[in-house]
Amino acid sequence: MKEATLTYDGVLIASGEQSLTKDALIVEEALCIFINEKPLTVTMQTPGHEMELTRGLLYTEGIYKRSNEQWQAVVVGKNKQQHITAVNVALNENEVSTISKRSLLSVAACGICGKTELDFVKGHLPQAASFHPQKIEEMFALMRAEQLAFDSSGGCHAAAAFDAECNLLSVMEDVGRHNAVDKVVGDLLFKNQLKQAKYLLVSGRVSYEIVAKTFAAGIPLLAAVSAPSSLAVDFAKELGITLLGFCRGNRMTRYS
Amino acid sequence: MKEATLTYDGVLIASGEQSLTKDALIVEEALCIFINEKPLTVTMQTPGHEMELTRGLLYTEGIYKRSNEQWQAVVVGKNKQQHITAVNVALNENEVSTISKRSLLSVAACGICGKTELDFVKGHLPQAASFHPQKIEEMFALMRAEQLAFDSSGGCHAAAAFDAECNLLSVMEDVGRHNAVDKVVGDLLFKNQLKQAKYLLVSGRVSYEIVAKTFAAGIPLLAAVSAPSSLAVDFAKELGITLLGFCRGNRMTRYS
Repeated sequence: MKEATLTYDGVLIASGEQSLTKDALIVEEALCIFINEKPLTVTMQTPGHEMELTRGLLYTEGIYKRSNEQWQAVVVGKNKQQHITAVNVALNENEVSTISKRSLLSVAACGICGKTELDFVKGHLPQAASFHPQKIEEMFALMRAEQLAFDSSGGCHAAAAFDAECNLLSVMEDVGRHNAVDKVVGDLLFKNQLKQAKYLLVSGRVSYEIVAKTFAAGIPLLAAVSAPSSLAVDFAKELGITLLGFCRGNRMTRYS
Repeated sequence: MKEATLTYDGVLIASGEQSLTKDALIVEEALCIFINEKPLTVTMQTPGHEMELTRGLLYTEGIYKRSNEQWQAVVVGKNKQQHITAVNVALNENEVSTISKRSLLSVAACGICGKTELDFVKGHLPQAASFHPQKIEEMFALMRAEQLAFDSSGGCHAAAAFDAECNLLSVMEDVGRHNAVDKVVGDLLFKNQLKQAKYLLVSGRVSYEIVAKTFAAGIPLLAAVSAPSSLAVDFAKELGITLLGFCRGNRMTRYS
């Protein structure tokens, strides 16, 4: 994560006194993801693990679920700092056709389109997760120890996946909450470890989108340092995901 | 903001003991924005001020900058709770044609497309802002006093605009940082007060997107409780916006 922060000059003002300061800030850059040379999305991300982000984003959005052997992606853009700014993924044209469905699925349970799509995906429910509070606390401590960019910048999110024995499988930091999750999922996919992931821990808050990505990754328990939204809890209940919020030390709240 | 939170049952686990608890969670729902009956975007938002959100989002994204007299928008969808879930905005077809430009402008300074677009918008720079640290502290206290949904849920963001004399013009809370800003901008537009806004305060972190929206709204100073990203500082410098981060009590850091 050496590229994750950059040092900026600032003026610290405290009790009316001014002094020069140097602060490490989390780096935010655009990554453009193309499919067959057509732009799919631009996500603002922290440099590093761009292929994991691309693989994970396409997986959790339901666009590309196939195996590593079939995965074909190349870097098509870099900036002056040699950070990756654009990735192109090669897909068969008949696979591309499914892309247009994704936004519909995302909002299916939001009261706009009814519950049809959500009912459809229910067949893939993960099993209800059991957990031991002390293990949750220990896993958060493990993740926290890896949050190097947060330590220096105070401005980024983390996500981490653990197996059934609470061993750390992957941890990622990013300026975007969803990117951190996508990078973890992509990393697990590349390492063929996604099926082993039983716990997903995230810093910060939980929106519906994070629950949807957890579900798409097939991970049965999601735990967060901060608050979930109403829709996150609704989704978690509906999808059978165990959702823990406000996980701080030995305190946590189970919402589903 | 009475619809901004909902009470959910939870199980509080503390030091191994379990007890039932009721927590207020911030409400997150989808709002679909249509232009001439064609979907433009779906944003996940906290119910309330949907017209302000629509007006503000279209303004800060550079899609619709015209006057209130010409603004034509109607609610086209509600859910069971009678919350607004869809808004349609009527635009002339020749105005719609500008929509395709917006994503290009957004990433213009990110190293993908070069600086051409950014140079183009520079003519509209706001004047460099002067500020008094104690006034910043007082304005944050005023905003904080209005963060009712945050008080109960701990899970939402706020944005507030102030005039040159540090009078509060508008304050909004939302599950999304960018939505809170867009709701403030939309509110100011409807009240014909956008030109009076000289300070924009936000809870949480500052990404490039928040700086871009501040610039689009023509507000010369942006202050945040938490950290800015690298690109937020780069944008603020480039666009002539005074950016303050880590504003806590009488401490703050000026980055541009």
